[in-house]
Amino acid sequence: MSIEQEITCWGLIGASTIASQHMINAIRSQSGHDVLAVMSSSQDRADKYAQEHNVKHAYSSVSDLLSNPKIQAVYISTTNELHYEQVMAAAAAGKHILCEKPLALNLDDAKAMLTSCKDAGVVMATNHHLRNAATHRKIKELVQAGEIGKPLFARVFHAVYLPPNLQGWRLNKPKAGGGVILDITVHDVDVLRFILGAEPVEAIAMGHNADLASQGLEDGVMAVLRFDNGMLVQLHDAFTVKHAGTGIEIHGDAGSLIGRNVMSQQPVGEVILRNEAGEKEIKIEHEDLYVYGVAAFCAAMRGEGMPSCTAEDGVTSLAAALAVSEACQTGSSVIIESPLV
Amino acid sequence: MSIEQEITCWGLIGASTIASQHMINAIRSQSGHDVLAVMSSSQDRADKYAQEHNVKHAYSSVSDLLSNPKIQAVYISTTNELHYEQVMAAAAAGKHILCEKPLALNLDDAKAMLTSCKDAGVVMATNHHLRNAATHRKIKELVQAGEIGKPLFARVFHAVYLPPNLQGWRLNKPKAGGGVILDITVHDVDVLRFILGAEPVEAIAMGHNADLASQGLEDGVMAVLRFDNGMLVQLHDAFTVKHAGTGIEIHGDAGSLIGRNVMSQQPVGEVILRNEAGEKEIKIEHEDLYVYGVAAFCAAMRGEGMPSCTAEDGVTSLAAALAVSEACQTGSSVIIESPLV
Repeated sequence: MSIEQEITCWGLIGASTIASQHMINAIRSQSGHDVLAVMSSSQDRADKYAQEHNVKHAYSSVSDLLSNPKIQAVYISTTNELHYEQVMAAAAAGKHILCEKPLALNLDDAKAMLTSCKDAGVVMATNHHLRNAATHRKIKELVQAGEIGKPLFARVFHAVYLPPNLQGWRLNKPKAGGGVILDITVHDVDVLRFILGAEPVEAIAMGHNADLASQGLEDGVMAVLRFDNGMLVQLHDAFTVKHAGTGIEIHGDAGSLIGRNVMSQQPVGEVILRNEAGEKEIKIEHEDLYVYGVAAFCAAMRGEGMPSCTAEDGVTSLAAALAVSEACQTGSSVIIESPLV
Repeated sequence: MSIEQEITCWGLIGASTIASQHMINAIRSQSGHDVLAVMSSSQDRADKYAQEHNVKHAYSSVSDLLSNPKIQAVYISTTNELHYEQVMAAAAAGKHILCEKPLALNLDDAKAMLTSCKDAGVVMATNHHLRNAATHRKIKELVQAGEIGKPLFARVFHAVYLPPNLQGWRLNKPKAGGGVILDITVHDVDVLRFILGAEPVEAIAMGHNADLASQGLEDGVMAVLRFDNGMLVQLHDAFTVKHAGTGIEIHGDAGSLIGRNVMSQQPVGEVILRNEAGEKEIKIEHEDLYVYGVAAFCAAMRGEGMPSCTAEDGVTSLAAALAVSEACQTGSSVIIESPLV
């Protein structure tokens, strides 16, 4: 077997829904990549998951998984409070790391994770999926091409109904990073940074609770962010509404881009451009968001380019989400310091 | 001529665009009502306006107009800083008063206007047009009928491009009540109060300036209001975007109502209901917003019912708009005290 034909093996830290629905397929769709192991704190759950997904090894501890020398990369999708120690351990073991958002529950942890990965020489990336969507990539391209003139405002609609099978820690475990802000608002921030090429610098927000979440967690939020290019952006995120649809809109002084049904894990949605010339639907070549993201990660592992969403991007989206959370609590505007300076 | 055939005569205080585009027609469409006089601070402008609109008398002072004993009602559409003294004078002269929004530049003035009209026994109303639209009346009806379940969130999109012929004091005269908040946000608040049957109690906001307005005025704003029924509402108002379209959305736990192109002076727009049964367009019998509002005002003058938007409604929408303005300035949440307690 030549080096070119060797398999790059992945370990899954967390026997999660998102891994089974999206990531196992995304990894296996890459030429020369496979999922070799899965870890769950429950050995029983790990065994069943491994069997179900044709994964060779099932572990109940992170260190066992990381001790497997064949594993070169890990995908971490445990609950959020576990990311920090798992990333630190994986970096120490020399594994490349694709970690779910939010990277951590506070900025110090997130920055330490980034630093450890740099020091260890491993690739670390954040699994923000939206910037991998063909819709959002097209919107970015059109904004940068000047199709709407100078962008002045954006709106993000990400108010959905949390599927019953996910109505667990997100709704009642503050210590696991539950609540709509760390779950959804971080994604909004990431895709806005991606599209606009600008950074959020100030946040105001009001939280909402419609009795789906408990323990002081928000199950809805409305926020406004100011970006360093002068734009204002409004966000509406929720776990509690079934029929709102999702969307993103960028409004410039010469036109508007309207993305409908685009805040999705699925390769769906449409993009409308309205300007002086009228309104037209933009042709989108949809492709799997996670396959696209994992492809960039695998290339980065080979030393070719960057992940589509870096660890730095994940630190920055976390900083903005924490600012939104603080603004909800205090009622006052929160300045978002650049976390990486 | 019998009493029944007597003409109820109106005087226009302010030779305004809105009077010529909407209100003269709305008054004359009422059986037995006519516009007898117009006042402008420029006699020349008053003369030309009177001739153009077939109005018998042209005055250059409010007192002259109010001294005409045939005039029973006035419509006030001067710049906002003038409303206070003009309403006080008209009430003292025993005229019924339909006044443009915002009623005044501060709450003390607005409340004094209301009190004076009550004491004088004249009808006073605020010319918030949106609640007169068939679209908004239908949305209110559907919300109250429970078609979307419990309402949790609303969104108002009222970011437009200020027509060049109106690019005057609204953009550069803070003392005239310029800026997008007193011009547009007051309307949003009124129509939300009308639809939701609830009161705004807290505001956060960020102002925007895209170099159309000057003198420290905002030409754009994004705000979030909390209502006393627990709802959160987000607003986006602007003078600076040409192709955003307008809209209002009410999202409940069992469905959503989407009004498109409904934040308009024209009898236009569509209403979509989405719930478990699917999505359907609601049939709207459009009618002129101003004719509808003036009809209610004329009935109130006859002692039949209330104006569609009372003076109290105007005081309350002003209170919320002033709170949004203060929130922009301070960066902090502003509690909106009920101004009429």
